[in-house]
Parts: sequence; structure tokens; C-alpha cells
Amino acid sequence: MKKIVLLRHGESLWNMENRFTGWTDVDLTAKGEAEAYTAGEQLLADDFHFDKAYTSYLKRAVRTLNCVLDRLDQEWIPVEKSWRLNEKHYGQLQGLNKSETAQKYGEEQVLIWRRSYDIAPAPLGEDDPRNPRFDIRYRDVPAAELPRTESLKDTVKRILPYWNDVIFPSLKHHDQLLVVAHGNSLRGIIKHLKHIPDDEIVKLNLPTGVPYVFEFDDRHLRLEKDYFLGDPEEIRRKMNAVASQGKKA
Amino acid sequence: MKKIVLLRHGESLWNMENRFTGWTDVDLTAKGEAEAYTAGEQLLADDFHFDKAYTSYLKRAVRTLNCVLDRLDQEWIPVEKSWRLNEKHYGQLQGLNKSETAQKYGEEQVLIWRRSYDIAPAPLGEDDPRNPRFDIRYRDVPAAELPRTESLKDTVKRILPYWNDVIFPSLKHHDQLLVVAHGNSLRGIIKHLKHIPDDEIVKLNLPTGVPYVFEFDDRHLRLEKDYFLGDPEEIRRKMNAVASQGKKA
Repeated sequence: MKKIVLLRHGESLWNMENRFTGWTDVDLTAKGEAEAYTAGEQLLADDFHFDKAYTSYLKRAVRTLNCVLDRLDQEWIPVEKSWRLNEKHYGQLQGLNKSETAQKYGEEQVLIWRRSYDIAPAPLGEDDPRNPRFDIRYRDVPAAELPRTESLKDTVKRILPYWNDVIFPSLKHHDQLLVVAHGNSLRGIIKHLKHIPDDEIVKLNLPTGVPYVFEFDDRHLRLEKDYFLGDPEEIRRKMNAVASQGKKA
Repeated sequence: MKKIVLLRHGESLWNMENRFTGWTDVDLTAKGEAEAYTAGEQLLADDFHFDKAYTSYLKRAVRTLNCVLDRLDQEWIPVEKSWRLNEKHYGQLQGLNKSETAQKYGEEQVLIWRRSYDIAPAPLGEDDPRNPRFDIRYRDVPAAELPRTESLKDTVKRILPYWNDVIFPSLKHHDQLLVVAHGNSLRGIIKHLKHIPDDEIVKLNLPTGVPYVFEFDDRHLRLEKDYFLGDPEEIRRKMNAVASQGKKA
């Protein structure tokens, strides 16, 4: 069996503050780092040996990956970073507190922005300092491809070329791959792998720091099964915690 | 001006215990990690923006690089790892305490092993568990190229293809590169860049955690100047500390 493990980064500063993060490059909290180390320990206990790892351009994902590789004692494996694995771009919402936004626009509108498949928040202005075109890390990305906001549909569209052209084909000559990314970029991959309909994928609340294993048969690379590593009760608790973000509370 | 910065990893557990390390994959000490963060802060203060970083397959180098990129807020840059940037392989000496080895074989013999250009320590046996052929990370390296011991000359010969074919040519389309590696692998690069004779390079004691900057003219990539970042007095103290390792004391 060949395996691809998807891992959502641990808690970030803005997760904790309940703010829309998107492409904002915020760091992990101490709890987020601890979640990452725990994920590494679980993968170690299950004897994973990755051939290669993929992550985004955002430090909360890169650092999560570093913590995992530290625990696995596999710092030496090749790591490839891509902007295409970045979180969904939240446009004008980036930086706003989710509860405040809910009070201002109503819970329902926030849920639409966070959870609808094809409705994107208002885009950043062309000259908004948060526009990715001002960030040196994206200088090699064609201007037409750099988002100023994204629906989940846009995010999926942006990720799939990288999945189809780079990550998945590398399974031909590798046995185990690790992808450390974000709630919505991983939704895109899971939607694709499991053929999940648009209205179902928006309800999937991926827990942070829990390795999600996909197994493929060696010959045809057909998906055989998928499962989370760890205690099911703890995983359910984490999924519910993610789902309840953005309520007024 | 184009720039390449060479950085020797911070103190490792076996540096601290004064043992021959070579290809043994020991971790940084807390002091070594602090050295790495300080190097990152110096590079930040001097406004370095790296396009790409290179490091070895050994975690003391990878982790030093991670600490530097953390301080620079440049976790997103591409990192390429190569076994060719590994430390000199110390053969049978790997794991021995330098002072004990000095008592056993005499200071002079230890100095020959550590500091002669073309004399290698006794090689590991073919079936010695420390033989790199048993280590999964080297599975793609041709058996004939995997060392069981090395002189500095061997180390230089192993590194130069990677320098000449990969690192240096990437300066054509990049402005600033970072190479985080080891005392002897960096000696090989410095010998090559500065045309240092065999008997001189063995006396160069590169300080740990001090960025060593090489500047090249934009058009011809000719070396224009080289200098350490930081306080000259502190750098001299660090160089002397490295030189005095392996004395009986």
C-alpha cells in the first residue's frame, strides 16, 4: 500500500483570536506547536517513513511540518513548498475577528462566506497592502493567478493543478508522502480524492494536527481507504470545535 | 552585488561532549539553537533576503537553517538538502571523545586525523552498523560514492560537484543564497572560492553560527570580497575555541 498523509497545521495565533487568517502569515501558538509534535509522535508510533513532504508558503504550515519531521527524526527528507497549497484567500475579511464579523454581518452571512462553495468574500483592493502582489514570495506567480479573494471553488481550482501534476504523480516512485497544509486547501484535495459534492465538502471540519491517512493500491494508485490516526473521541471533539468558530458567542 | 552566505551550524551535543561526530546525526544543544537564532538576527539586521537555501542531510544543519529562516521570517523560501554538504566522515573515530582519543593515540595523531589534508582515519568496517549504506537516507547515493571514512581532500572532492553544478550556477538567476553546513564541508567551499592551499585550509577554524558573506559581481560572478558578520573580537574567541578542541585538557 502506498500512503499519502494530509495534516492540517496546529492552532495559529489568529485561530486563537478567532480572526480570518487566509494568506496572512501568522505563527503557531505554543498549543499549535504541541499539536504538531503530537502528530509527529503518532506518525512515529505507526512507523511512517516519508519519502517527500509538501507544504505551503505559510509559516504555520512550514513550522508544523518541521515539528513533525523533528519527532520522526526525518529532517533530511526533501520538502517542496508551493503557494498553491496556501489557505483559501479570505479577501476583505482577512484580519477581522470572526465573532465581530458575525455581529456586524450576521451569523448567516459569515457562514456563507466561510462555508459556501462558490461565494467569495469581497476582494482586497488592487492597492490594498494585503494584496499578495506586494509580497515578494509571490513574485514568480503570474499576476492573473494571484487571488485577491477566493471562494472554496476558487481554492480547489488553484490547488488541483499542483495535486495532479506534482504531488500525486510522485507517488509512482515514492511510497509515502506527507502534505501539511490548511483547512480549505486540504478540503480541496479531499473533495477530489473522495468525490465529495460541493454542498457536502463545506461541512467537512478537518481537525487540526490529526494525521489523515489515504491508502492507495501499489499498481493502479486507486484509493482503497482513508482514516484519521488517533483517538476517535478526541478527533470528534476537535472537529466540533472547528465547526463552532464564527458563532457570536 | 550577488551574495552567498556560508553558515556553520551551532553547537551540537557531541561538540559539547567533544566527540568526533562526522556523519552521526546528533542534535543541536540549547546553546547551538541560540547561536542559530543569533545568526538569523544578524542576517535580518543586515537586511538579507535569500532566494534559496542549501543544507546537508544532518539535523544539526537543517535545524540551524530552520532557526535562521524563522528569525528572517523567510520560512517560505525553497530549501534543497544534499548528502554532499554533510560533514567530513570520520570513519572509526565517529563517537569517540576527542580528549580520550588524544590520550590513546597522542595529540599529534589526533591533529593529523583532524587537520591533515589527505590522511583519513581508519574506515568503518563494511558491516559496521555506522556504515552509511545501512542508513535509508543514503539509499539513492551510488555505493561507490558513499564514504566509510574521509580525509579533508575526500570531503572537498565530494562537495565540489554539488557546488559547481548546483549551488554556484543558481546564482545566475538568484541574488542571495544561504548555505548551512559543517566545519569541513564549508572548508571545502572556502578553499575552492579563495584558492587556499592544502596546508593552509586545515588551519582555518570556522566559528559556529557566524554568517560568512561572499560577494560576487553581478556580471561575471567574480568573488569581490568576503567577511564575517558580527563582532570581530567575539569571532576570534570562537575560532580559538574550535582550534583548541582535541587537546588533552
